[in-house]
Amino acid sequence: MAERDFIARLLVPLAGSAAARGLADDAAVWTPPLGRQLVLTHDTLVCGTHYLPGDPPGDVAWKLLAVNLSDLAAMGARPAGVLLSLALSPAEDAAWREAFVAGLGRALAHFELALWGGDTVGGVGAAVLGITAIGHVEPGKALPRAGARPGDGLWVSGTIGDAGLGLAVARGAAPADAWLAKRYRLPQPRLALGQALVGVASAAMDVSDGLLIDAERLAAASGVALAIDLAAMPLSPAARARVGDGDAARLALATAGDDYELLFTAPADAAVATLAGAVPVTRIGTVVGGAGLQLRGHSGALALPQSLGWEH
Amino acid sequence: MAERDFIARLLVPLAGSAAARGLADDAAVWTPPLGRQLVLTHDTLVCGTHYLPGDPPGDVAWKLLAVNLSDLAAMGARPAGVLLSLALSPAEDAAWREAFVAGLGRALAHFELALWGGDTVGGVGAAVLGITAIGHVEPGKALPRAGARPGDGLWVSGTIGDAGLGLAVARGAAPADAWLAKRYRLPQPRLALGQALVGVASAAMDVSDGLLIDAERLAAASGVALAIDLAAMPLSPAARARVGDGDAARLALATAGDDYELLFTAPADAAVATLAGAVPVTRIGTVVGGAGLQLRGHSGALALPQSLGWEH
Repeated sequence: MAERDFIARLLVPLAGSAAARGLADDAAVWTPPLGRQLVLTHDTLVCGTHYLPGDPPGDVAWKLLAVNLSDLAAMGARPAGVLLSLALSPAEDAAWREAFVAGLGRALAHFELALWGGDTVGGVGAAVLGITAIGHVEPGKALPRAGARPGDGLWVSGTIGDAGLGLAVARGAAPADAWLAKRYRLPQPRLALGQALVGVASAAMDVSDGLLIDAERLAAASGVALAIDLAAMPLSPAARARVGDGDAARLALATAGDDYELLFTAPADAAVATLAGAVPVTRIGTVVGGAGLQLRGHSGALALPQSLGWEH
Repeated sequence: MAERDFIARLLVPLAGSAAARGLADDAAVWTPPLGRQLVLTHDTLVCGTHYLPGDPPGDVAWKLLAVNLSDLAAMGARPAGVLLSLALSPAEDAAWREAFVAGLGRALAHFELALWGGDTVGGVGAAVLGITAIGHVEPGKALPRAGARPGDGLWVSGTIGDAGLGLAVARGAAPADAWLAKRYRLPQPRLALGQALVGVASAAMDVSDGLLIDAERLAAASGVALAIDLAAMPLSPAARARVGDGDAARLALATAGDDYELLFTAPADAAVATLAGAVPVTRIGTVVGGAGLQLRGHSGALALPQSLGWEH
């Protein structure tokens, strides 16, 4: 299918907003909401690196959108629209493209977002899929990574490590478990929580490369240390059933990527536990002076593992 | 070089604006100018398809920025900032990356733009480079492709076909000519002209895939036909010296891509010739009723060539 047909037949139906101009112009045109700051991010998924060639194309589309919306969630932003960037290989045949676009349409509808524009090219060896997501936030209120202060509590949303176990399932390296595989393939950006944390959290980021490596990044950005109680790290029943509850298992789960939960800090007196809404949040530590991470588990102080997570 | 070092050492120095937040957050935060509409585009260059593996990395960076700014120019927008998306292969070694980022820095400085954020990944077979460019325009005044009306004049900026000849030079398929090679490697987005055309042009787009194929797209978007006098199509002295001035040469130049000139229509009484500023504009035809293209050359009516330009 030529780019022209692909755009006309599959992508134009997703581009119903005025900003997209029917994908007929050189660029999208959007009136930003009055009195808001814009939040802009671009994240890329590479076939074979960030998803598996055999992953259902509709799930890949969900993930591509979700990882970008997760960045907006981490800033406390409300999403408004996206630009799509597809560099496709011969492996993304007509059936793949149809299924991908159908999944993207469902994902956009789920988040009440419009496709504003983008770019499709061919001729690559392995697909490189990108989205630019644009959202907005109350001026000056975007959640930074750099705001953690000693004495703040350290919190995380949802459960940690499911996606890493789900990746092993999807690879066929672990027994089937539909729920874990779904946690890997269909991450849930914590948009409502992120928006609720505006004015409450002192620092925030999303957990994409592993809880520990991302916590280290937050600590470095804030110029503080984080004392993390791994025994408090929330595990799903599925993860607990699969790997148990020992310190070694918890260390492995804390260094697995793709969770897309929110990691944030808040003053000790902030009413965090009551604001969360649909997704539970769990306190897992405390901001302290110094630099880096201090880990405890069931057995007391733990040494940092050699790798804290996924390095690109 | 790990992504972290690459970002910290090479990209952070380009990200001096407040919007970039030192590339330390999950997303950029930007206050849009009051009372303006935003114009957003994302264009991708694939190594081996949109540029040659041996092209100087700094020139590739210029081209990546320029093709995106050309889309903003075609909408009449003023650029404000960019997000960068790099999917790199082992061929983009440390020296390539340094030269690329140095060139990107020069290009951003030339256009007085800041790097706001983006994403860098590895592990691809051939580099896929993307930029999201964000600009702004007076509300309701973005230049559409769909506004051409019968009786309007058809105009083009600069000279046509140089980049196609420059590509042959860069490939070693034609004798060396530094000026032509530069026209291929270092396209000039017609930003000042695009902004000057706001309120004057009835339709506009940039010429990226070939004058004829892009003219056909403008005609289709507007629901009109375009009568083009190829004999009026502006040629550079270098192009004329290389291929002469015959109809066959003009047809070949009109189907070559990568010019990044502006193609636009304007009412017959619009004072186009006097507003252009630095880049000359030339009337090459007339909007008429119907659909598609009608070509004339030195020898009278010309048949449309089988391929009108570059199809992705």
